[in-house]
Amino acid sequence: MVIRVCIVGAGPSGMATLGMFKKMKDQGEPVEVTVYEKQNAPGGLWNLTWRTGLDEYGEPVHCSMYRDLFSNGPKEALEFPEYTFMDHFGKEIPSCPPRPVLYDYLKGYWKFLGVEESDVHIKHSVKNVKYDEARKTFTVSVKNLVKSEEYSQEFDRVIVAAGHFSTPHVPTFNGIETFDGRVLHAHDFRNAREFTGKRCLLIGASYSAEDIGLQLYKFGAAQVTMSWRTKPMGFAWPDAMKEVPLLTKVSSKTCYFKNGHVEDFDAIILCTGYQHNFPFMAPEIRLQATNIFNLPNLYRNTQWYGTSPGTNDTDGRLFYLGMTDQFYTYTMFMMQGLWAAQVIKGIHSVPSREKCVANIAKGLKENEFLTTYNKQIDNQAEFMERLREDTKHPVCLGGCADMFKGWEQDKHEDILTYRDKTHKNLFTGIVSPVLTKPWVKLMDDSLENYLGLEYVEYTEKHTNGHTNSH
Amino acid sequence: MVIRVCIVGAGPSGMATLGMFKKMKDQGEPVEVTVYEKQNAPGGLWNLTWRTGLDEYGEPVHCSMYRDLFSNGPKEALEFPEYTFMDHFGKEIPSCPPRPVLYDYLKGYWKFLGVEESDVHIKHSVKNVKYDEARKTFTVSVKNLVKSEEYSQEFDRVIVAAGHFSTPHVPTFNGIETFDGRVLHAHDFRNAREFTGKRCLLIGASYSAEDIGLQLYKFGAAQVTMSWRTKPMGFAWPDAMKEVPLLTKVSSKTCYFKNGHVEDFDAIILCTGYQHNFPFMAPEIRLQATNIFNLPNLYRNTQWYGTSPGTNDTDGRLFYLGMTDQFYTYTMFMMQGLWAAQVIKGIHSVPSREKCVANIAKGLKENEFLTTYNKQIDNQAEFMERLREDTKHPVCLGGCADMFKGWEQDKHEDILTYRDKTHKNLFTGIVSPVLTKPWVKLMDDSLENYLGLEYVEYTEKHTNGHTNSH
Repeated sequence: MVIRVCIVGAGPSGMATLGMFKKMKDQGEPVEVTVYEKQNAPGGLWNLTWRTGLDEYGEPVHCSMYRDLFSNGPKEALEFPEYTFMDHFGKEIPSCPPRPVLYDYLKGYWKFLGVEESDVHIKHSVKNVKYDEARKTFTVSVKNLVKSEEYSQEFDRVIVAAGHFSTPHVPTFNGIETFDGRVLHAHDFRNAREFTGKRCLLIGASYSAEDIGLQLYKFGAAQVTMSWRTKPMGFAWPDAMKEVPLLTKVSSKTCYFKNGHVEDFDAIILCTGYQHNFPFMAPEIRLQATNIFNLPNLYRNTQWYGTSPGTNDTDGRLFYLGMTDQFYTYTMFMMQGLWAAQVIKGIHSVPSREKCVANIAKGLKENEFLTTYNKQIDNQAEFMERLREDTKHPVCLGGCADMFKGWEQDKHEDILTYRDKTHKNLFTGIVSPVLTKPWVKLMDDSLENYLGLEYVEYTEKHTNGHTNSH
Repeated sequence: MVIRVCIVGAGPSGMATLGMFKKMKDQGEPVEVTVYEKQNAPGGLWNLTWRTGLDEYGEPVHCSMYRDLFSNGPKEALEFPEYTFMDHFGKEIPSCPPRPVLYDYLKGYWKFLGVEESDVHIKHSVKNVKYDEARKTFTVSVKNLVKSEEYSQEFDRVIVAAGHFSTPHVPTFNGIETFDGRVLHAHDFRNAREFTGKRCLLIGASYSAEDIGLQLYKFGAAQVTMSWRTKPMGFAWPDAMKEVPLLTKVSSKTCYFKNGHVEDFDAIILCTGYQHNFPFMAPEIRLQATNIFNLPNLYRNTQWYGTSPGTNDTDGRLFYLGMTDQFYTYTMFMMQGLWAAQVIKGIHSVPSREKCVANIAKGLKENEFLTTYNKQIDNQAEFMERLREDTKHPVCLGGCADMFKGWEQDKHEDILTYRDKTHKNLFTGIVSPVLTKPWVKLMDDSLENYLGLEYVEYTEKHTNGHTNSH
């Protein structure tokens, strides 16, 4: 009997998982994998669109990506050991490439794994996933967006890889309806050039506020003020950027803050995070979570064991990938995909339900102690190591914990130059080259431009000041 | 046996229908009516929010309304005979009031009908409606957005009053992803003040382009260029406004048009209409339509007879309200609600299925001949008359066809002043007063401001130039 597997979403998680199934086609139980992707191509968030709100089919736009985004972490921390950037581009490239370069690398990796774009049902939006306890199968209802037709299909396993940075968390503020400029969530931010010369208020103190704030600065916003609730990011911001306590009131153009500060703005950007939102999953098999490192109801943050009241267990037939908070990204998604594929194919078997449930509880308890970046990084490195043990993957991918810690330090030393640092490839030991132009002056994010830019190979003479090889 | 009725949506259609059921509580079959509304209050599009895209619950924002919208048609053409503006405000008011005044009037009408806000389940989003042919009932799945809980309920009749101006139709254009300013659909337009001093390109030649264009002009946009596909609106635009043929290419800030025209812009607003989108209805009972005057599968544009392949008939147990293109609005929605309520209560019975289906086909045929505004107006006036005959409603509400025709003429005479004209109340014969300040100078849309503004009662001396009583 062939096991029928459905993957929801063809982003980095879904595509890597499909690749793992392909790679293991002669091992374990035979499977038949179907991938549904609502966007026009694989890539998840790396597939940029100019659209916001609802798309041409009336579906919520998945994209939270923007033009000119450069990686905010070293590529060496997300590089696949079996397919390096060197393998893909034929030369070493600097550590923080722009989106099109990373997207191109992902596409190369999929090809390397033997995955074709035609293996994915693009423009197919999954509308409903139900579990039938008697039949031990899932009914997946999906809409062909182009034909505007819906149909249902039965599967033995479901892997949800739909991402959790697409449904914005949008709080309100006293008087925000009177604001005279544009109000948007980071999810709808597409292009910093729209805000050149503008006074921008960003609400939030996490990655979105940090990176969108820097983009606005780079593209000539007149002012970038970032408003924090719990605590400021505390970076050494350039003159046109600053942090202030929480916004308390808006009146026309004027914003009032908790510490008495008053300032006029042209735009308010809510960098207030995202919701884990899987409305297409039946309530009893739906992950409800916030952006944390160890998730409820998921063994190894991957396999569903409904332990919360009202959940259905599915006897381990359901998987969620990439749903934790993230330091590790591409490699973690791949490892989760490999793990799920091995479990489904019976190559690796999980402990008793009791032990899995106890392990989930232990993880939730651990969350309480992850109060610093370093503790969070160590916790996720450990998780990577558990995945490696379980899957018997030959390469330690969690070994870049120190790189993340150094990266946090770099950011605190100089938030404008941390992307100009070099990093050492974990597997080859080669240190990435340095761009002759710093990130703050890179106004073109195209692949052609980036690969054509001049850069110097790393040598010791670069260690002072603008390079850093942890 | 009490007939269990579910109304989806508490806009002008849903609320009027609920009111009709209340009014007829001692007539015909007993009913129990449940209304689900996903927004935070009744009002449909008249309930303005600053939000765009997805709301605080991750639901698509229903609102397509914007600040400072004034009625673009005479209030006399949407006035309820049993509850006039005079009844509500205690005085005559001018013909084209702003949104808060109309919303307040609607609320007064609901109160007059005995409908309370507590009769509506607000923040409840209908997720799925299925018809069970054997049981002859509908299963309605609904999500309590505040509790994030889903549940299902059985109903004998369903009335879909969810509107059709909420899911944008969003085409793309060559190079639009390179545009350096904001791109938005009219659905996300909230405030013209954001565009003061900006060069704006609007794509479209219908009500959205016309009204948003005028708003932008009024609030000081540097340029308003409107791009048409089929034909221009052809109004006598002021200097800062113009119409050009269709956009063919975008490159950074520069836009290229079919006639060779080239112009730079800061914002592109897609005024490209809306989709009839009812994803919560099972495909076999889902209305598929464009914005036309006589709809497929709906007898009297209201009662569902699935005649298209793959549709389910429900034996007339399903209703859609307000789904046609519209000259008539509040009064038509009310009449459709009255009609549906009478049919459900058995007060009025419809002809044989065969006759209904033939009538639907006749309507579709008529659409082909509705090539001018006047023909469209007459067709909808006739529809109003059919509803009146069927329901035995005592007042002719279709009698404002001439008012609509004159209004079209007023617009073509002067697009900037047509809202300053007066109109004669159909029932009382009283002519509306004239605001001493013309619409183009009314920058505050608040109820308090509008009701406090000075205006002069209509007398013959106003007929020359700035008044008009058709």
